[in-house]
Formats: sequence, C-alpha cells, structure tokens
Amino acid sequence: MHTRLCDLLGITHPIVNAPMAGPAKADLAAAVSEAGGLGLIGGSSGDPEWLRQQIKATRERTSRPFGVGFISSFPGLDGLVAVAIEEGVAVIAHSFADPTPYVPAAHAAGILVLAQVQTVAQAVQAAAAGVDAIAAQGVEAGGHTGTSSATLPLVPAVIDAVGDIPVIAAGGIADGRGLAAVLILGAEGAWIGTRFAVSRESAGSEWGKARVVAAGTDDTVLTKVYDLISGSPFPAGIADHVLQNRYTRTWHGREAELLQERTAWRARLEQASQQGDAELAAVRAGNVAGLIDAVEPAGDILRRIIAEAEAILRRRPAEVLG
Amino acid sequence: MHTRLCDLLGITHPIVNAPMAGPAKADLAAAVSEAGGLGLIGGSSGDPEWLRQQIKATRERTSRPFGVGFISSFPGLDGLVAVAIEEGVAVIAHSFADPTPYVPAAHAAGILVLAQVQTVAQAVQAAAAGVDAIAAQGVEAGGHTGTSSATLPLVPAVIDAVGDIPVIAAGGIADGRGLAAVLILGAEGAWIGTRFAVSRESAGSEWGKARVVAAGTDDTVLTKVYDLISGSPFPAGIADHVLQNRYTRTWHGREAELLQERTAWRARLEQASQQGDAELAAVRAGNVAGLIDAVEPAGDILRRIIAEAEAILRRRPAEVLG
Repeated sequence: MHTRLCDLLGITHPIVNAPMAGPAKADLAAAVSEAGGLGLIGGSSGDPEWLRQQIKATRERTSRPFGVGFISSFPGLDGLVAVAIEEGVAVIAHSFADPTPYVPAAHAAGILVLAQVQTVAQAVQAAAAGVDAIAAQGVEAGGHTGTSSATLPLVPAVIDAVGDIPVIAAGGIADGRGLAAVLILGAEGAWIGTRFAVSRESAGSEWGKARVVAAGTDDTVLTKVYDLISGSPFPAGIADHVLQNRYTRTWHGREAELLQERTAWRARLEQASQQGDAELAAVRAGNVAGLIDAVEPAGDILRRIIAEAEAILRRRPAEVLG
Repeated sequence: MHTRLCDLLGITHPIVNAPMAGPAKADLAAAVSEAGGLGLIGGSSGDPEWLRQQIKATRERTSRPFGVGFISSFPGLDGLVAVAIEEGVAVIAHSFADPTPYVPAAHAAGILVLAQVQTVAQAVQAAAAGVDAIAAQGVEAGGHTGTSSATLPLVPAVIDAVGDIPVIAAGGIADGRGLAAVLILGAEGAWIGTRFAVSRESAGSEWGKARVVAAGTDDTVLTKVYDLISGSPFPAGIADHVLQNRYTRTWHGREAELLQERTAWRARLEQASQQGDAELAAVRAGNVAGLIDAVEPAGDILRRIIAEAEAILRRRPAEVLG
C-alpha cells in the first residue's frame, strides 16, 4: 500500500499517530515511525526543555522521520515550535488554531507542516496558509475534536475544497476496515488516536487503557464537562470525546450548575486522575473504543491495520463489482 | 455492483432512501424503486387512510419492490403497520423504537423487516428480534438521528455484533465516494436521506431544498430546539440534525429558557414553516449538505452515485495497492 502521503512524508505506510497530549511521547512516536508510519510527539504536554528531551529520546529510538504536533491554542506555543524547528523534526502538526503564522519558518527550515481541522472553513484557511497536508477530524475522534461534522462527510468536502493537498482522515479509524474505507473515500492516509492511546508504548495510564478496552461503541460522550473545570483554552466549537462515567452522567447537560462548584471539582478531578478513579477522571476515547479489545504494541497494531486494509482492498471490490 | 442486500430485497442497486416524514412520499419512493433501489415511503406523515393512498400511488408508478418506514416511537403505529401489511408492501422499516413486537406479523405476511439503529445495543436487540437487515445510522445523518456514534465507527461495530445480518450504512453518504467507502467498510448498502430530500420528487418544500443546496458541511447543528417545541415523541438519545439558522443560533444551548416560551414559539415556528422562513423554520439536513449542489431527479442521483462508486471501486484500490 502506498499513497501520495507516503511520498510526501517519506514513510512506508499512510498512518500518522495523533499527537495526543499525554499518551504520545517518545516511546509511541518512535514505535509508530519504526513500524513505517509517521510518529508524532504530543508537543503540548510539557515545556520547551521537556520537548527537546522527547525529541532526542525519539531520535535515539528511530532513524525514520517523525514529528511533533501541538494544541496550537495553548499558551507557550512559540517556544515549543522554536524547539521543534531547532531540533529539525521532519513534520510539525498544528491543531485547534490557524496554522498560518507558523508555516513560513517551518518551511524555511525544511520542515513539513500538517494542519488538523474540524471544518471545511478551517481546511480552506490551512490550504491558503500553504500547509503540506490536512487532517480532517470528525466528531467521532477521541479526545478534543469538533462538534460539527463526522469523518465520512467531512473528508470528501475537504478534498473538494483544498485541491491537490493530501487529506488525511482523522476520527473513527482503528482497524483495517476503517483505513480501507477512508482511502476509498479519497483520503491519502489515516490519523489514528484512540487505537494508539491503547498501545503498550502509550504514556497514558494503564487504568485508562483498560477502561477503553472494556468500553463499547455506545459508551462515549462528546462533552465540555472536563474542559469547563480545567479551563484548558480550546477554541469555540471544540468538545472532548471521553468515556461516559458517573461524572459525565451527572454533569453533562448541567454545565451551568457544574460551574458553580468549579473549584471543588478541580481538586476532586485532579485527585481522581492521580488515583485512577475512572468514574470521575476523564478517559479520552472516540467511538472506536468498541473496536479495541487489547493493549498491544503500537507496531503490531499498525502492521495489522495495514495488512487488513490491503486484504480488504484486494477482496471487497471484486465481491461488490462481481 | 451487487451485494447481499440486493438479493435480500430483490433490487438492482444497494441503495435505500430514508423514509423521511415529509419528503418521502409516493413520488420519491417510486422514483427510487424505478431506478433500481429500494424506495421507502415515510409512513409516519399521515393517518392509515393517507398511508393506504400513498402505497397505492407508489404501486401505480412502479412494479418494483418498495416499502414503508415508520418513526416507530410515534402514537398510532399499530394502525399504520396494519395498512402496510394489508397492502402487502415488500418491506417495513422501523426506526426510533424496538422493532421486536412487529417482526412476527410482518414475516407471517411475507414482508421483510428493516431496523434502523443508532447504537450497537439497539442493533443487538434488532438482531435478536429477527429483522432481515439493520441500518446503522451515524450522528452525521440529516433529521432525527443518534447522538452517540458516527457512521464510520458504528458500522463495523454493528457488523461485529450482529453476525450475518446485512448492515446498511446510514448517515454521511451523498455521492459515489460515500457509497464506495461504506461498502469497503463492510456495509451491504447505503440508506440515503438528505441527498434524496433534495431531489425533484421529494415532497419537501422547495425553499428548504434551496437552503440545503446553498449550505455547506459546516452549516448544520444536531439539536433539540425544534423537538422541544413540537413535543414530537422521539426517544432519549435522539436529536435533530438541521441547518443552522437564526433560531438555532439563538436557542441551541439555552433550551431551559426556550421551554419557558414554548407556546409562543410553537405558533411562530408553524407560521415560519408555512411561510418558508428558513431563519426560523427547521430545514433538516446532515453534513452531506456540503456535497449537494442541485435539485435533481432522484433516479439521476441514484444512477450517478452507483456509477461513481463503481468507478472508484475499479480505480482506487489499484492506485493504493500499486
């Protein structure tokens, strides 16, 4: 299997791991790159010196291309981007903010720029900024994502809007069926979060991984009940896809009341995360939770997705076309 | 192109029109069936005598199989189902309620039963009830739909859960790219609403069709602000995918306040619908609004979707597999 995204990024397989703040540290990025995908470090999990160490640690584990992805609405972005450029990563990915200010310096340093978008309007903006590829993220994605469109209708609309720029499908893909489907839809690759968050190399908590393994498709909710407490500066139109638990069932839909108790809940939720109390703490996952049955090495996951997708693309069209 | 769904339903092309209350009357159902798909009358738009006339009118326009689909949480279902059975339609489809009570009588009359579901749990229930096919509907679908999962992750999870029962993908499909993608995902066909609502044979308003043609992918919202006013008895977990307008921008997220003015808004919204005031009245559409550029005959739409999907299934796997 080979797409234009492979040529663009210098990778073997058209899979990128989502640069998830928390799970996507050097171990995961290196494992994905070593398996032939593009590993991305979640660059918004620490300060510039932390990021420099993560990049160095990734480089020690792989000689293949890898990158760093940012939650670009968070404060401190400039310092983090400067480190990524100084360290000469292959790719910088921006999510949740207009990437325009960051394209020229990256390109001047020979670094490719990916933009993750949740709307067609954002895709048009990113294309005008000159990004090298666009990840179109649907509402089914785990963690922070848009509230407007799902992946299946978003990807073709973004393709129609941005011309020749390769579009990567993000959200709803955890196995070879999903990868094969989005390639047929016109995407040049898949941006995969939840499935890699539940890998052995993910730096996420083991209790969180176990909850995703146990969860089904119906067990998630797209909500603001954690961001309202944390105050994390995500832009309008972005919510947080998490597993349902006692906390979400209590407060989703009662956000005004919840805000009255914000200080108390901030302490309680921090403690719950430390203690692994998944009935209160956030466990971020998309609807593909229902397609994930085990914590496995990221390389095994990636190779299986590719092999399954290749088998489907060889078999299924003939079945349907007769 | 030919799938197990074609064999099951006795149709040429694996496309079913959503039995949309309002748009899907005899003209649309007959046009879809005549073009080789399965036409479904939206059976919850009137009383039993009205439905009988719609079935007769459909039969006058086509000798091919067609069916009736119900909003099965609405009152009066038993009388409507009785008419569909008496008239011997080929298929009865249930949405928004457990189909179990309705399967034996339909099967005894030689009528196939489809169940549209929004969750894996509902799919398991429908499979246990003995339905003949299951439509798995994602949040991107137009009009009334679930709030939990999008089509891309829902379809494979439903397939895994229901064994050999054919699964139809519903939500997010308006062109050959979408159909090809869901067939690769493992679906045996596509259940298509918004695209057929914007057809010449759709009984929806012309001003509503024009709004969908003008709208983009980013212009919809999944909301309860119309159902709260109408009081339509949809079950928990179901919301309404409509085009954003002044009314939704004002009231979505302020539902408690809106309910204070329910009586006044009920009159205002009814008047707005009659007058074609699309800044107040509901225009139901999914995210595929961004993929729809013209009001066209339903048969032309169906044939183009099939031709595009066939071309993609012949071309794209070879491009990707090399």
